[in-house]
Amino acid sequence: MRILILGAGGMVGRRLVDKLLADGNLAGQPIEAIDAFDVVEPSFDSASGAIRIESSAGDIADPGTVQALVAKRPEMIFHLAAIVSGEAEADFEKGYRINLDGMHHLLEAIRAQGDAYRPRLVFNSSIAVFGAPFEDQISDTFLQAPLTSYGTQKAICELLLADYTRKGFVDGVGIRLPTIVVRPGKPNKAASGFFSGIIREPLAGHEAILPVDDEVRHWVASPAAAVGFLLHAATMDTEILGHRRSLTMPGLSITIREMIEALREVAGDEVAGRIRREPDATIEKIVSGWPRDFRADRAVEAGFVADTDFASIIRAHIADEAGREGAQ
Amino acid sequence: MRILILGAGGMVGRRLVDKLLADGNLAGQPIEAIDAFDVVEPSFDSASGAIRIESSAGDIADPGTVQALVAKRPEMIFHLAAIVSGEAEADFEKGYRINLDGMHHLLEAIRAQGDAYRPRLVFNSSIAVFGAPFEDQISDTFLQAPLTSYGTQKAICELLLADYTRKGFVDGVGIRLPTIVVRPGKPNKAASGFFSGIIREPLAGHEAILPVDDEVRHWVASPAAAVGFLLHAATMDTEILGHRRSLTMPGLSITIREMIEALREVAGDEVAGRIRREPDATIEKIVSGWPRDFRADRAVEAGFVADTDFASIIRAHIADEAGREGAQ
Repeated sequence: MRILILGAGGMVGRRLVDKLLADGNLAGQPIEAIDAFDVVEPSFDSASGAIRIESSAGDIADPGTVQALVAKRPEMIFHLAAIVSGEAEADFEKGYRINLDGMHHLLEAIRAQGDAYRPRLVFNSSIAVFGAPFEDQISDTFLQAPLTSYGTQKAICELLLADYTRKGFVDGVGIRLPTIVVRPGKPNKAASGFFSGIIREPLAGHEAILPVDDEVRHWVASPAAAVGFLLHAATMDTEILGHRRSLTMPGLSITIREMIEALREVAGDEVAGRIRREPDATIEKIVSGWPRDFRADRAVEAGFVADTDFASIIRAHIADEAGREGAQ
Repeated sequence: MRILILGAGGMVGRRLVDKLLADGNLAGQPIEAIDAFDVVEPSFDSASGAIRIESSAGDIADPGTVQALVAKRPEMIFHLAAIVSGEAEADFEKGYRINLDGMHHLLEAIRAQGDAYRPRLVFNSSIAVFGAPFEDQISDTFLQAPLTSYGTQKAICELLLADYTRKGFVDGVGIRLPTIVVRPGKPNKAASGFFSGIIREPLAGHEAILPVDDEVRHWVASPAAAVGFLLHAATMDTEILGHRRSLTMPGLSITIREMIEALREVAGDEVAGRIRREPDATIEKIVSGWPRDFRADRAVEAGFVADTDFASIIRAHIADEAGREGAQ
């Protein structure tokens, strides 16, 4: 089996590649090659050598680049590449080019292959396809009315994925990821960054800023759960999806207060005390437009598995960090 | 005021132009010029001469064509141009080119004007943005999960319209038209054609084929109501829409049996007797996937007015036909 991963250099993409290398197979089929594509060429440790990794870099908005990758006829494609929310909002043209044109080129390149080529395509969508006002618990039949260009682009990609699948060109599954917590690495500029920051930074001995109220509720999943979603989407029987090919992934609906309580439970008072409240009206306004809770019934029925509790997410993050330091 | 109408040569487009010519103004502002564009150059009787009509023909999927029309800086744009459902399903590329790229080029041409140019853009969408399984009465927060390429293209255009409006490039209103009944003229190949055919043909002395069961329920509006929707969308205060810029138009939810009863009431037994039942499994299957009933609450609150009853629609059709014959 040949696997193409667009956006392989990102946080979730790297974890996915690592997992595939460790497993060596997908859905019972041995993996022969992984094409790992990103805007900057990603490098992976393919020490075992059983799986060939072909890393490359380029612009997903360039049709020829995408065509060349698809011409290798991967049986499985993960499309994780995207400009993040903040950048898509700041640079209107770039957002549409990367997030919309990129997906459209990919689907067209697959369609152009013909010859009954019909790969599974797993597309990373986002809960940003939803916009306020919401239901208390957003159901699987709630409308997609995004309030950002990023969410608009993801919602459009979901529609294209469903139509190209319905017409038999591809076997698509779109997964709407919750906010991923705890993201490793340095704080980034995403408005959602503090959800990870208030866990990661205190654990690392640093102070973290909390810009919103403790009662703010959000929909989160761990990095490990995200990789689990991708693998399940890649291997599941898609017949049960019918024509609605995108699903809200199951997450945890949790308040900031509950997150901090879990941190205190796992790591103690001193660590939890490193969070400093510094309300930021701009971030509070952005966050107030985000969904807080879902009923992800279809995804659960389709076998997607959520994290069990937030303390476990924190413990997994601590173990990951220990593993990372051990490897250095 | 300058008005641009894309798709001015179609049934609704022609009625819209006639109404604008008769009124002479829109939202209290005198109309100076109407750019009437279609794939075949439409001709209108501008006998009064007070309003300049500039008809032209071209390909809406050609960016330069659309740019030239927008360069005249119309304050009001009606975008009614589309490849119909059946053709978009049969010719995948053409459907996306005309129905999606056409709209995207239009929005980009408007954005490129800059200089605070922000026209009102009324976009003809369709209830085809919805796909089965449905709620009994489809609400304003029900998801768009189309089951045709046409519906997919319309749903994508709605998302683009909302995002370009949110970013301040345009002042957009999307209206999802019910099936228009009674369409004048010859029977066409649309799967929905029989809804008009079973009224129009018996009234004209011809037999009509009914390919579905009498209990089939559908969502319909008259041609006059459709023009009313367009004019209200053009002149309404759009502030009340918030960021959800597309609305399901109010229609009549009516069964075939009720339509035939109304025909009998208006035109008598002999006319109603000209309907021959000839079930067609293919059409029955297509129609079973169509929405039957809506709660168009937002549109009603925003001032859009539905037809009152089906007998009135038939009487208006009879009056229209008499007017047409009188004019010949």
